[in-house]
Amino acid sequence: MFCLIVPVDLGMTFKREIKELFARGHESHLRNISVDCVIFGFHGGELKVLLLKALYSEHWALPGGFVGQDEDIDESANRVLQQRTGLSDIYLQQFRVFGEAGRATQKMNRKILSEIGIKGEKSWIFERFVTVGYYALVDFLKVKPASDHFSSGCEWFNVYELPQMMMDHDVIVAKALDYLRFQLNYHPVGNNLLPEKFTMPELQKLYETILGRNLDRRNFQRKILGVGILKRLQERKSGLSHKAPYYYKFDLRKYQKALQSGMGFQL
Amino acid sequence: MFCLIVPVDLGMTFKREIKELFARGHESHLRNISVDCVIFGFHGGELKVLLLKALYSEHWALPGGFVGQDEDIDESANRVLQQRTGLSDIYLQQFRVFGEAGRATQKMNRKILSEIGIKGEKSWIFERFVTVGYYALVDFLKVKPASDHFSSGCEWFNVYELPQMMMDHDVIVAKALDYLRFQLNYHPVGNNLLPEKFTMPELQKLYETILGRNLDRRNFQRKILGVGILKRLQERKSGLSHKAPYYYKFDLRKYQKALQSGMGFQL
Repeated sequence: MFCLIVPVDLGMTFKREIKELFARGHESHLRNISVDCVIFGFHGGELKVLLLKALYSEHWALPGGFVGQDEDIDESANRVLQQRTGLSDIYLQQFRVFGEAGRATQKMNRKILSEIGIKGEKSWIFERFVTVGYYALVDFLKVKPASDHFSSGCEWFNVYELPQMMMDHDVIVAKALDYLRFQLNYHPVGNNLLPEKFTMPELQKLYETILGRNLDRRNFQRKILGVGILKRLQERKSGLSHKAPYYYKFDLRKYQKALQSGMGFQL
Repeated sequence: MFCLIVPVDLGMTFKREIKELFARGHESHLRNISVDCVIFGFHGGELKVLLLKALYSEHWALPGGFVGQDEDIDESANRVLQQRTGLSDIYLQQFRVFGEAGRATQKMNRKILSEIGIKGEKSWIFERFVTVGYYALVDFLKVKPASDHFSSGCEWFNVYELPQMMMDHDVIVAKALDYLRFQLNYHPVGNNLLPEKFTMPELQKLYETILGRNLDRRNFQRKILGVGILKRLQERKSGLSHKAPYYYKFDLRKYQKALQSGMGFQL
């Protein structure tokens, strides 16, 4: 259900494209710099992250890419997000640059290329890459996961149960999660992660899942209502007892305002 | 007083070094990526930023540099900070990546090189650079400003009265200031910007200068004391009336703790 394995096309077109990228990609792309996207979704009470299965490897990787010579770096991240999820107009936030000298891609890339039958010692692809980490919060149900050239599948994983990750991608996910938690203190969260209408327990569950700890029900309700970004609907969640919880919606005008000006929300 | 113009050494050593950087710098440095540092200091009631005068130009620039092949990107930023200020062990914070396709360095670099008498159409130095913005808060009085290869002077400027800046460096300063203001909401500020002991009006003035607006005296005092990072000394500021304000110090243990865990401080 969370998974869509795209069959690996190892035909001529694919090989030609990889060969071209290997040999002359540096003419159309910046060298030594890449983008990686941590794409969060929320489903079944779990915070999930979208990962790609690296070709010829047991490792998984973040959706990422190179930066076109004429492309703003934010555009590169948006392109990656769109290609891997089918979504556009999603707010992507730079959160950190990963530029340690030791994070070389060489070994993994050499393996993939040699498996495909492309040989050669020198390529810009074997050089060191500094990567810019972006994160996005997306509507899980709207995403159509899709692999790229270097992967054989694209799947959602529980952020607390990651598979074996390539390079420092586990660190990048951990840092994105730190950043998201920190954001909870001053930015509203939920608009892309929850359905349009949701109950207070569902909203609390989202916060608890991101924070990785339980929150006091009354305290949470008092604080989140105090921020003034929620509208309570007349409708209650059906199929439950007479104590069924009311539905809420975000007041999107106030939500956007709180996104811009911050809201000092300490849980 | 804020200024130290280092005489431009256009001798043989300098020329050889520039020529070497121009021709073969890409062998020892990453391509297409650089660092730029916004170094803030506080003096005479002004928030200041350290700038370099570009060679053969009326423009000023942020202290910046390239990333060595074997150097973590954070190390590059620290090296730049140390070379330009003489300070080490200063906390530098990445705040944003500036990666617009249009921010080319080509024109400025060509001019400098042609003035020095170095010709050549192709060099990694003329390529596009994505730059990682760092900012630091430093003790103004401890800084010994020093120029680099591409500059003829190094000076402090009031952040609200910047000179004509190179490329998008004015935008980088503005974004760093935004970031610093935002930081005031959850991180303590002042430890590197104020002398070891200071009065409440001096601390308030620092906050007002960063925010660019006046604050209510009583409200400020109540809130900042509420955070619990200040120790009041028995000593009062001398040379003033009997109403002379008390000196304060930061409680550095609590200050560090607030830096790490945040403090939800809304002014």
